[in-house]
Amino acid sequence: MVRAAGVAGLCRVWLVGKAGRVTAKRVDAASGTRDFLAADVRAREEAFALIRQTFDRYGFEPLQTPAFERLELLTGKYGEEGDKLVFKILRRGEHEATGEADLALRYDLTVPLARVVATYGSQLPSPYKRYAIAPVWRADRPGKGRFREFYQCDLDVVGSTSPLADAEVVCALADALSALGVPEFRFLVNSRKVLYALLDVFDVPGPVGGRALIVLDKLDKLSPEAVAGELLGLGLDAPTATRLVETLSGPDADASVRKALAGSDAGREGLAEVDQLIALSVGQVGEHRIGFSGSLVRGLDYYTGPIYEVSAPGMPGSIASGGRYDGLVAKLGGPDLPACGGSLGVERILPLLPAKDTAGTGLDVALTVLDSDSSADLARIAGGLRAAGLRTGVYLGSSGKLARQLKWANDQHARYALLYGAAEREQGAVTVRDMRTGDQHAVPIEEVTAYLTGRRAE
Amino acid sequence: MVRAAGVAGLCRVWLVGKAGRVTAKRVDAASGTRDFLAADVRAREEAFALIRQTFDRYGFEPLQTPAFERLELLTGKYGEEGDKLVFKILRRGEHEATGEADLALRYDLTVPLARVVATYGSQLPSPYKRYAIAPVWRADRPGKGRFREFYQCDLDVVGSTSPLADAEVVCALADALSALGVPEFRFLVNSRKVLYALLDVFDVPGPVGGRALIVLDKLDKLSPEAVAGELLGLGLDAPTATRLVETLSGPDADASVRKALAGSDAGREGLAEVDQLIALSVGQVGEHRIGFSGSLVRGLDYYTGPIYEVSAPGMPGSIASGGRYDGLVAKLGGPDLPACGGSLGVERILPLLPAKDTAGTGLDVALTVLDSDSSADLARIAGGLRAAGLRTGVYLGSSGKLARQLKWANDQHARYALLYGAAEREQGAVTVRDMRTGDQHAVPIEEVTAYLTGRRAE
Repeated sequence: MVRAAGVAGLCRVWLVGKAGRVTAKRVDAASGTRDFLAADVRAREEAFALIRQTFDRYGFEPLQTPAFERLELLTGKYGEEGDKLVFKILRRGEHEATGEADLALRYDLTVPLARVVATYGSQLPSPYKRYAIAPVWRADRPGKGRFREFYQCDLDVVGSTSPLADAEVVCALADALSALGVPEFRFLVNSRKVLYALLDVFDVPGPVGGRALIVLDKLDKLSPEAVAGELLGLGLDAPTATRLVETLSGPDADASVRKALAGSDAGREGLAEVDQLIALSVGQVGEHRIGFSGSLVRGLDYYTGPIYEVSAPGMPGSIASGGRYDGLVAKLGGPDLPACGGSLGVERILPLLPAKDTAGTGLDVALTVLDSDSSADLARIAGGLRAAGLRTGVYLGSSGKLARQLKWANDQHARYALLYGAAEREQGAVTVRDMRTGDQHAVPIEEVTAYLTGRRAE
Repeated sequence: MVRAAGVAGLCRVWLVGKAGRVTAKRVDAASGTRDFLAADVRAREEAFALIRQTFDRYGFEPLQTPAFERLELLTGKYGEEGDKLVFKILRRGEHEATGEADLALRYDLTVPLARVVATYGSQLPSPYKRYAIAPVWRADRPGKGRFREFYQCDLDVVGSTSPLADAEVVCALADALSALGVPEFRFLVNSRKVLYALLDVFDVPGPVGGRALIVLDKLDKLSPEAVAGELLGLGLDAPTATRLVETLSGPDADASVRKALAGSDAGREGLAEVDQLIALSVGQVGEHRIGFSGSLVRGLDYYTGPIYEVSAPGMPGSIASGGRYDGLVAKLGGPDLPACGGSLGVERILPLLPAKDTAGTGLDVALTVLDSDSSADLARIAGGLRAAGLRTGVYLGSSGKLARQLKWANDQHARYALLYGAAEREQGAVTVRDMRTGDQHAVPIEEVTAYLTGRRAE
């Protein structure tokens, strides 16, 4: 028999066959996805709340967009490889048979931002400082630490060319990392202008410049020789390739970049941009946590100004990154506004944070149910405890045995258990058991809430 | 040029053509979806937090499952009509051309719950008390108040037959409604056993019983005559149809139901179940907020015991509902466990709550930027204010004019504006402007954080 879903958000409907049965077999979660049980949900929510508070303090505003967008909004935005990773939603009803898609799951948070800026225009504050912490979906091959549903955490300033905007993003990212409890981290800062000036100084032909930068970005993974080899493959001559690699690698790379750019106006401008961002951020971020890195490339060619990545001891790759991307909002379909922004790699950071004490998530009070005549009294006692803010559980299992119910209370990490049977009922009292010490005290029913809230304050 | 997404959660990649341009046109949000800008996000998050706190206090645990499931998990669970409303996700890569789907967006929160119970079994507490507040997706025709992405808010107890479990759900729903600020509401309680006993007493043939109940559920919308007419259409004889409708409608319906069931063991059992649930809940919910309703049907035939709906003056339909559904978890592919649960109609309730004062979401302090030489000092001042927990914005626009910047501060609902130009710099002071009164005071830079945190405490 078929039940229609009458009310959005309220009704839950299932096919129940004429015989009242649905044949169902066990089905696993979709590959690359995760279920989060209580402890994980709590840890993640707590982390997200800390990040939100930090971004709020900087005057960034939250934005929530739908999980899916029209397919045409996403198509062509992520490159050929990226397009393949977009989850597409089949058309519905009579169109389902076409096998075509018209919607797609959000692949990142920036294309929706550009759409929102295009849609709401002057309704938004100017500049628009927004953050978003939300899942995105990518049909990547699932693997260790790689999921098809994962959270991104972005903050962006749309509509400002001020260097203070870049500094706000950097400082907010740093504050968020500190709030999350990441003990040490370091911002490496560079500018695309520095990199383009370098290409110019070394006479790298314009058309291969972008690709040369992507190759140079591999200097932290490949040997200098291997990188030089790849540059040759792009058509650079051997002396140029070698000098580029030598300038950008080695312990004195930053000094040699500055030296190489001494005679370039564009290079000096780029270096000034880097120095200014560091100067505006260092007070908040800390002297040892931010510095210039001439070899930082960020292999994404939409960046137009300062760029940065954050690394942390014991955490693989970068845990945050960002930069200025003045042309991107227009490219994504929004108005032609300058912008800068950054991302916090929450999915990388969260698993590496120290586990929280589980004590806080246990019950404050566990109520045993020793006979059914106690139910109404217990419901009333539980109501009083909850109204006082105590996390209170009532035994809902089928055993009437005290030992079994105390085991349940223990499994729930209960601080106190309440025993209430025929004897207690007669006396109008409750036996309060301290689950740590095993001590028991009789407390009059009317006083039990005050007694336990008082204990919690101790 | 194509950039690969190297890092889940971190990289943002776009197709940027060889000429550095992507042609993009404006694309709207998908129909039936909503963007939530800052004020809406805040109002919703605040409401969700209140609900979570309430459910937590009852010892319910949060659960988060992925947005999509394997298609086979959802297929056949929601009836023919429901199946059509499931958003299906196209297979990817070489399989995309088949036009087939292998995944589907979550349609409700209960099928995922059954999957989790099946998957995690004894890893979960027993009974498993879980809540979930999360979006679901249905390809319904978008319309007034009807969306394709909307939040559900469920709490369920899996693995308990105790009447205290039903009462916990009822009390938690009532507490959540109170926490949200719904001023008045009323739980109407019935039991499927009452309804089945009525069908029995009136000699309604077994095979049409379920459908007769669905027709009777329309008594709150249709006239008694129209409902009786539909019952005739099911094959009931005229006297039976008339007597059923008479018993269940009118001001004395509850008394006439009790009277009709006086001689039925099953009927008395059902009524006892109703009375017990009310007795266990009334202390917490309040005398005037809960009562028996013999005509409440809940047109969902998976319910097996007590059922309830909540109505509120000024809110259309029911704003919460639930009941006991002992066979459902098994039907949905989980183990054969008793269960009960309820839903809060958050999407119905949220738009009807009184709007919050926007003052709390404005800036505490707005920093004007009167010349570029001030930037480093301003960044430092802003850092100090934020570290003290003050929501602080720095002017990031392009105007150097004070009037323009003060307008920005006003638009940001800033409580105070800081003015810091050449004159102030010379004196090592900041001019603090009270945005309500227009009063201005010079405050030494080192004291400005203390000055403003002190003011906030006033």
